[in-house]
Amino acid sequence: MITIHTKTITEFTAVCYDIVDITAKLKARIRAVGMRNGTATLFVNGSTATLTTIEYEPGPIQDLNEFLEKYIPADRCYRHDDRWNDDNGFAHLRASLFGPSLAMPIVDGAPSLGNWQEVTLMDFDNRPRNREVIGQFIGECE
Amino acid sequence: MITIHTKTITEFTAVCYDIVDITAKLKARIRAVGMRNGTATLFVNGSTATLTTIEYEPGPIQDLNEFLEKYIPADRCYRHDDRWNDDNGFAHLRASLFGPSLAMPIVDGAPSLGNWQEVTLMDFDNRPRNREVIGQFIGECE
Amino acid sequence: MITIHTKTITEFTAVCYDIVDITAKLKARIRAVGMRNGTATLFVNGSTATLTTIEYEPGPIQDLNEFLEKYIPADRCYRHDDRWNDDNGFAHLRASLFGPSLAMPIVDGAPSLGNWQEVTLMDFDNRPRNREVIGQFIGECE
Repeated sequence: MITIHTKTITEFTAVCYDIVDITAKLKARIRAVGMRNGTATLFVNGSTATLTTIEYEPGPIQDLNEFLEKYIPADRCYRHDDRWNDDNGFAHLRASLFGPSLAMPIVDGAPSLGNWQEVTLMDFDNRPRNREVIGQFIGECE
Repeated sequence: MITIHTKTITEFTAVCYDIVDITAKLKARIRAVGMRNGTATLFVNGSTATLTTIEYEPGPIQDLNEFLEKYIPADRCYRHDDRWNDDNGFAHLRASLFGPSLAMPIVDGAPSLGNWQEVTLMDFDNRPRNREVIGQFIGECE
Repeated sequence: MITIHTKTITEFTAVCYDIVDITAKLKARIRAVGMRNGTATLFVNGSTATLTTIEYEPGPIQDLNEFLEKYIPADRCYRHDDRWNDDNGFAHLRASLFGPSLAMPIVDGAPSLGNWQEVTLMDFDNRPRNREVIGQFIGECE
């Protein structure tokens, strides 16, 4: 029988481009629900953060940061900043490019990740935030 | 009991980089279905448009437009244009980068968006289009 | 009644930026399952490949390749390469940008694609790979 379960992952993120590996928490949520076979729909409810996958080691993380600093720099002034006297226009732009959601299969009780692939929350905002990743799990449980 | 419901959102888009806030229509579809808890899988069936989330105010929209004009300009000639005597190669490239789909949780009868986060349809094509966003809603209804 | 079915699409990819149209295999999996109405959650389990949609003809494919070569070139050295004596840092960066997953509606027994829109697996890695796209199909079958 297919059932549905909502579980949230909360992360405290530090300033500007904090990238957090949420794979362990995701696996724990799947175990808590007891899901064997289904899908996880993950979504970050904010317009300055995003979800993706990466090989979570300092190299790719730094490469990604350097790429973003080059093409969507944090120290430039954006239209969003002009209008609101804000200074996180770059974070909005980056987040729209990557997108807020990640949908993935759950097979044999685990997310269908590769060996060197982690699920990451990227927070681009320029102040510490408590971030929520809302997970909707649909499938067959034990 | 889990059920499934297909609902479409239709938007008429104007020329070149029209970005439309479809959040109100999405919420109306969820209410029409009576879904309390589930997922919305949204998909735009065309290769020159895309879905993402953004803080829908003129600042971030203009920032996104300026970013795209700088790195994937509309007035350049692309290989796609050479081959087909077409002039929307830039729109194809932009749309592939952002992707056509958005999967999101529905919790307590509403999409799990942040306070300053809207679901947006971005149409990059260079002529007016009637766009369809196909929504598949899976979950528990009232 | 809603049921769930896991089906994998396997592709052998050649060196560096191989982009494969997996639409026919996706349609075959949907037919094999007999699904009429539901969602396909597709996921590539590796951190150097990605899924998107594109008009699958040589023009847009070459445009995408030229765009990536310009902004995330394959012949540059990345931090990931420094650390691991590896040379596919560019592939990691590209894959994180595009993302590993694609969620789409299945309506009337077929994916809800546009007429000129194909589902594509992009492998950015610099050696031949056997790639797996894991598909989770949830919905109503015949």
